[in-house]
Amino acid sequence: MIEQHSLSERIIRLALEEDIGSGDLTTTSVIKSEAGGKASLITRQELVLAGLPVFKKVFREISPEIIFNDSFGEGDLVAADKEVTLLTGSLSTILRAERTALNFLQRMSGIATLTRQFVKKVQPLEVSILDTRKTAPGHRLFDKYAVRIGGGVNHRFGLFDGVLIKDNHIAAAGSITGAIESAKQGVPHTIRIEVEVEDLAGAKEALAAGADIILLDNMLPGQMTEVVQLVNGKIKVEASGGITLDRIKEVAETGVDFISVGALTHSASAADFSLEVIPE
Amino acid sequence: MIEQHSLSERIIRLALEEDIGSGDLTTTSVIKSEAGGKASLITRQELVLAGLPVFKKVFREISPEIIFNDSFGEGDLVAADKEVTLLTGSLSTILRAERTALNFLQRMSGIATLTRQFVKKVQPLEVSILDTRKTAPGHRLFDKYAVRIGGGVNHRFGLFDGVLIKDNHIAAAGSITGAIESAKQGVPHTIRIEVEVEDLAGAKEALAAGADIILLDNMLPGQMTEVVQLVNGKIKVEASGGITLDRIKEVAETGVDFISVGALTHSASAADFSLEVIPE
Amino acid sequence: MIEQHSLSERIIRLALEEDIGSGDLTTTSVIKSEAGGKASLITRQELVLAGLPVFKKVFREISPEIIFNDSFGEGDLVAADKEVTLLTGSLSTILRAERTALNFLQRMSGIATLTRQFVKKVQPLEVSILDTRKTAPGHRLFDKYAVRIGGGVNHRFGLFDGVLIKDNHIAAAGSITGAIESAKQGVPHTIRIEVEVEDLAGAKEALAAGADIILLDNMLPGQMTEVVQLVNGKIKVEASGGITLDRIKEVAETGVDFISVGALTHSASAADFSLEVIPE
Amino acid sequence: MIEQHSLSERIIRLALEEDIGSGDLTTTSVIKSEAGGKASLITRQELVLAGLPVFKKVFREISPEIIFNDSFGEGDLVAADKEVTLLTGSLSTILRAERTALNFLQRMSGIATLTRQFVKKVQPLEVSILDTRKTAPGHRLFDKYAVRIGGGVNHRFGLFDGVLIKDNHIAAAGSITGAIESAKQGVPHTIRIEVEVEDLAGAKEALAAGADIILLDNMLPGQMTEVVQLVNGKIKVEASGGITLDRIKEVAETGVDFISVGALTHSASAADFSLEVIPE
Amino acid sequence: MIEQHSLSERIIRLALEEDIGSGDLTTTSVIKSEAGGKASLITRQELVLAGLPVFKKVFREISPEIIFNDSFGEGDLVAADKEVTLLTGSLSTILRAERTALNFLQRMSGIATLTRQFVKKVQPLEVSILDTRKTAPGHRLFDKYAVRIGGGVNHRFGLFDGVLIKDNHIAAAGSITGAIESAKQGVPHTIRIEVEVEDLAGAKEALAAGADIILLDNMLPGQMTEVVQLVNGKIKVEASGGITLDRIKEVAETGVDFISVGALTHSASAADFSLEVIPE
Amino acid sequence: MIEQHSLSERIIRLALEEDIGSGDLTTTSVIKSEAGGKASLITRQELVLAGLPVFKKVFREISPEIIFNDSFGEGDLVAADKEVTLLTGSLSTILRAERTALNFLQRMSGIATLTRQFVKKVQPLEVSILDTRKTAPGHRLFDKYAVRIGGGVNHRFGLFDGVLIKDNHIAAAGSITGAIESAKQGVPHTIRIEVEVEDLAGAKEALAAGADIILLDNMLPGQMTEVVQLVNGKIKVEASGGITLDRIKEVAETGVDFISVGALTHSASAADFSLEVIPE
Repeated sequence: MIEQHSLSERIIRLALEEDIGSGDLTTTSVIKSEAGGKASLITRQELVLAGLPVFKKVFREISPEIIFNDSFGEGDLVAADKEVTLLTGSLSTILRAERTALNFLQRMSGIATLTRQFVKKVQPLEVSILDTRKTAPGHRLFDKYAVRIGGGVNHRFGLFDGVLIKDNHIAAAGSITGAIESAKQGVPHTIRIEVEVEDLAGAKEALAAGADIILLDNMLPGQMTEVVQLVNGKIKVEASGGITLDRIKEVAETGVDFISVGALTHSASAADFSLEVIPE
Repeated sequence: MIEQHSLSERIIRLALEEDIGSGDLTTTSVIKSEAGGKASLITRQELVLAGLPVFKKVFREISPEIIFNDSFGEGDLVAADKEVTLLTGSLSTILRAERTALNFLQRMSGIATLTRQFVKKVQPLEVSILDTRKTAPGHRLFDKYAVRIGGGVNHRFGLFDGVLIKDNHIAAAGSITGAIESAKQGVPHTIRIEVEVEDLAGAKEALAAGADIILLDNMLPGQMTEVVQLVNGKIKVEASGGITLDRIKEVAETGVDFISVGALTHSASAADFSLEVIPE
Repeated sequence: MIEQHSLSERIIRLALEEDIGSGDLTTTSVIKSEAGGKASLITRQELVLAGLPVFKKVFREISPEIIFNDSFGEGDLVAADKEVTLLTGSLSTILRAERTALNFLQRMSGIATLTRQFVKKVQPLEVSILDTRKTAPGHRLFDKYAVRIGGGVNHRFGLFDGVLIKDNHIAAAGSITGAIESAKQGVPHTIRIEVEVEDLAGAKEALAAGADIILLDNMLPGQMTEVVQLVNGKIKVEASGGITLDRIKEVAETGVDFISVGALTHSASAADFSLEVIPE
Repeated sequence: MIEQHSLSERIIRLALEEDIGSGDLTTTSVIKSEAGGKASLITRQELVLAGLPVFKKVFREISPEIIFNDSFGEGDLVAADKEVTLLTGSLSTILRAERTALNFLQRMSGIATLTRQFVKKVQPLEVSILDTRKTAPGHRLFDKYAVRIGGGVNHRFGLFDGVLIKDNHIAAAGSITGAIESAKQGVPHTIRIEVEVEDLAGAKEALAAGADIILLDNMLPGQMTEVVQLVNGKIKVEASGGITLDRIKEVAETGVDFISVGALTHSASAADFSLEVIPE
Repeated sequence: MIEQHSLSERIIRLALEEDIGSGDLTTTSVIKSEAGGKASLITRQELVLAGLPVFKKVFREISPEIIFNDSFGEGDLVAADKEVTLLTGSLSTILRAERTALNFLQRMSGIATLTRQFVKKVQPLEVSILDTRKTAPGHRLFDKYAVRIGGGVNHRFGLFDGVLIKDNHIAAAGSITGAIESAKQGVPHTIRIEVEVEDLAGAKEALAAGADIILLDNMLPGQMTEVVQLVNGKIKVEASGGITLDRIKEVAETGVDFISVGALTHSASAADFSLEVIPE
Repeated sequence: MIEQHSLSERIIRLALEEDIGSGDLTTTSVIKSEAGGKASLITRQELVLAGLPVFKKVFREISPEIIFNDSFGEGDLVAADKEVTLLTGSLSTILRAERTALNFLQRMSGIATLTRQFVKKVQPLEVSILDTRKTAPGHRLFDKYAVRIGGGVNHRFGLFDGVLIKDNHIAAAGSITGAIESAKQGVPHTIRIEVEVEDLAGAKEALAAGADIILLDNMLPGQMTEVVQLVNGKIKVEASGGITLDRIKEVAETGVDFISVGALTHSASAADFSLEVIPE
């Protein structure tokens, strides 16, 4: 699942180092280092499970011997009060990694659960729910993975794998046409050029200048429909800006190809889990 | 403000590297590298401002020459649609750092804003609102700082600067008394020992065994009052578990010294800001 | 010029650390640490200058005080035996950094000089000379920058900012059509899909399946012409495979849009420079 | 074979990170993650094989399970179109690491192949072909290893494990004698002192001042012979400067002990290999 | 035993890198890389064994296959000329890691041996011998562990897990009372507040202001006794300053709870060990 | 003074990170962050000053603004109770860095002071006092620098810049002659070959086999004299093994060129300094 070796490794290690620091005073003093045991990961709400491989990796970063018996897998919709996986191994390792592992899992499952809600709202329309770059700093990889698990589709990963000419670029470049022409010169031929516009005139200019995708920022549904008709399938159209669960259906019905939702990653509530050591 | 040199540096660099990767295709191709300009950071909701130094540090990590003219400072309650600071400098730097800088600021101000709401609910009672270790992995330092800005008080930073014997430790150790005795042996004399209990019997046992602080986990207000009366000021009492804005006043009125709230850092919504380049 | 902060920093530091290790025995013992002086960077052949900012950064990594007076700039065609820049500052710093700085500069100028030769061969045809991922490991950023300085155009930077379905992918996926369909599903909408084919049949299949770009691998000029006619401007066509200075004109005349040349970065000879301390 | 743990690790990781970045879009979308298969590493020219352990390490850095069945070993002279090794394992891993692994192998085998040509030119004379510090930055360890595989001998690794007083040091120090005396004071007794000279007078002065080795820079064969006779076996003599395959025999016949050749590492062409997935 | 993953890893890698650098010239050239053998770790004095896990980790960092057969364990008092453990494995690995591994072991066993001497001097009094932060930079974790092995007790690990208001803090804050009050405000409730005082008046002020622990710095035994009587068990009392093996008994008899001794970690002599390869 | 950029940086940062961790609780809560002041670095014994640049670098790592007014310089013999330097700047920075800075300075001055004692014992004989690789792990650079400041001379830095064939190498290689011959083949020509021998026969064999330096390990003075006469100035002779201040004169008088002393770096006591904030 996880490709980016270095980014995923770095955030996991950073998280463990900030939490464990010079050592876990409680576990070291209270738990015998050789004590083994079992612990159960339990849902405390209905949720879309996302992040179980990361959850496991946190424990294994401390000690590779922890064993997991899973009852559910990534992407499953799990009811409240279900055992997701059973951990067996060193109690010291389990207790030391518990909080960090849960922090990742709760964030990722929270994102997947919220994404699923958005995705369901627009079914069965042919529109993709996209994420944005509004992720928790250092968590881009995990946040975007969680969106996919929830049924969303990823926009570009960062500044390097897509061109998105936004209002600030246009303000700096002077015009939509000028910005598009510059981008066409300077970007590898494997990359498409997307342009953010705020009204029909902008959409027309972008289309004429050869944009590959148009992003409609904070436009009204009526305006969006006009742009969709103007474009008429020649290029793709994306909508964004203040999209909520209440509003998304209406936006989808305008016929846009994509709707991007910042809240998926910047404002999802943590999903509720607990980890319970099972007394012998 | 920020002490932990290395943790703060690492998350900021990780965030920039994940976003910029091999380069910002849009800015590089659209903006002349020597172009200078101004941009305005604007609030889009009422919020408690937190994270402005981190916001600035992100820009300076790319280029130290950006200048900031601040209209507000850390901890200020700022109304919607106000300019917080005016940036002057290289437009390329501004556009390259914009999203990462905003991602930090929106998260931190979101936490501070939510914390302030909890703090106001319990005024004028003498109770401190505490954070937990339920922070975004890698963001502990910034999340806890934002809690302080919002008027909260920090619990221990991590596993290394406090002892908190939780249900899982007690399950593994066999008894509250045994766990407390082990901790007293193995921990530097500069550290207090806090114990999580679930009922009055547990509180009695912890008190008798010499706990320095008692944490009441998911207890009813009536039970909390009983514990507060039992303890009678000899040691400190903390309440936790499912504390919401609706419930917190009732918990505070039981007379506990501290109330810890995981939601402050795991479920705060991002505060809404935008950055607008000012056309010349 | 250089965006990717971390990659460029890491290769420069690695280079200095491998060379200096526990210290420069010769300079430390022979040169007084406070001695200042001047040194002249001189071309020993005609070349396209590329890498001067990297050359300078190596010295500044050791000591920020070295001053450079440039007689030429990036991209200049410089004759043999010309002074490119005059260094003034600590002789110890100059001598310590000399070899590492030259190693970068000689490699980069060698690449730019070779690229310029290929570019001139195809003028005035409308075809771009592209680089490949056949760069010196760790030098991708600098190698590709040098290609641009020499008048070439960059293909994708790495595996993350473009899709290129090659023979091995097709062998693994079973068919060209299947591979293209999978890619269309799984890739952000900002990315185009390029497919490598080996004959006209492959080109037809790729075109029908919706490829955005076709790469003709090791095809004869006659075949290339057929593909160009087939495609008829609907999508872009790139040629690659064993392109030499002798052959490139013939390939360009087939009408392809791009020609990619691995030799630019894997087999360019170092350009010849020397650094001469000027005795007082 | 590879000692320097940290340098070799760092360049391999840097190379993978620059290529894979946020993920291999093509492989991830086109290849099923659980698909296994075989691939054959094939020579496309006659070459001296060097770098197979590095080639393997690149794959194992991504996944340790790839199996290699070798038909040839380090240092073997391999004809064109031979299978060097057969890889078995995850196709995703193979395709993701392919280019980076080949980039190392092609560079290293190119250096070994070129070194072998120089070594053969001087046989059966008793002279060693040395490398220099003109290596690709960050590749010192691998470049010098490849020289050994090709039959060459390593000069000092860097600035820290040998003294080589060059023209610039002499210019800065004022005289050959002064420079040698300073070096004798300041350097551990395990290190020999080598001095670069440009004529017979310089050689005489260096010999008198107690140099342990003399390096003849850009001297004519006749002059070299004079120095060799002057030195008469008391210390070692090295020749350098513009040594080509055409010239080296003549230089060797002067009786020098060592000839150092920068081109071995700064201008070797990549050796030609390909990796072919074997369809099932 | 070792918790702090990152600190222990970093100092071990740093130590190996500084020693091995670009490679072990002697072992590489003299020992066949495939040669196996045995070596014996032998004490050359009576000592308290501490650091055997670190000793082993150094070898395993180079190659995980070395096997150890231990005759003694951590904390054992071992006579001179005893075999502590027998190593079996690659001779190259053994010789390459030998010096670094011994450097750690000799330092740690030296500290443990000295600590044991201090601890024995105060038996059977109920006083704990504490370490300080006067450890070798980068060795805090290992130095403090060695103190525990020798029978000592750890003071706070660093600046982050305890408050110790020293003379310089009081000088800067203006008064003992002011400093204590500030600390009580700003520190998590899990942390106790210790204050350094120099006389009885200081102790009285600290007690009145609510200090949790008093540190008596460089006071005479008579004064210490007065403070112990004043405090009368209400809070803990620690003595420090110029404590030697000769003086410690007298200090212990004053009734203080803790005595901290900087010399344990800043001035312990290395314990004497040797490693002997056993000829076949 | 300090060359090895990366090693010195890494140990200083490691030291600060282990001490400061998540923040200096005492200073942050007690000292106003904007408070400035002065502090005096004072000797508490007679000592040779070494490490002042490292001491300063620790403070500057936290904040570059601290100013130092020095009364003494590196290598000065300073009496007890003298002010070495006066610090002016942020009190928070001063207090935060104090202990780490002192830990470096006390260790380095301790080494220099002990080295000076050994050097004085052998004056005016022509013998150099050498250090060994028995340094505190991670401190090689600083420990060896301190030896030079104390008047000693550095042996090789690590395993990479000298050959020293020790008893274990000879045991593994089978014979002194075989080991020397292997080393001559495999080592750059800039490196001398030193061999450890235990008796006259060993010295004879080493001399005959072409060793460049002989190390006499734990031999009696009479035996050493015999070896010195045998060698008769043809190569250098070094003595080592259990050298104390009492014994060194006798060893020096045998006529050996070098005496290496492990105790300089593994058993020097910390030199006594204190840092005193000056109340306003």
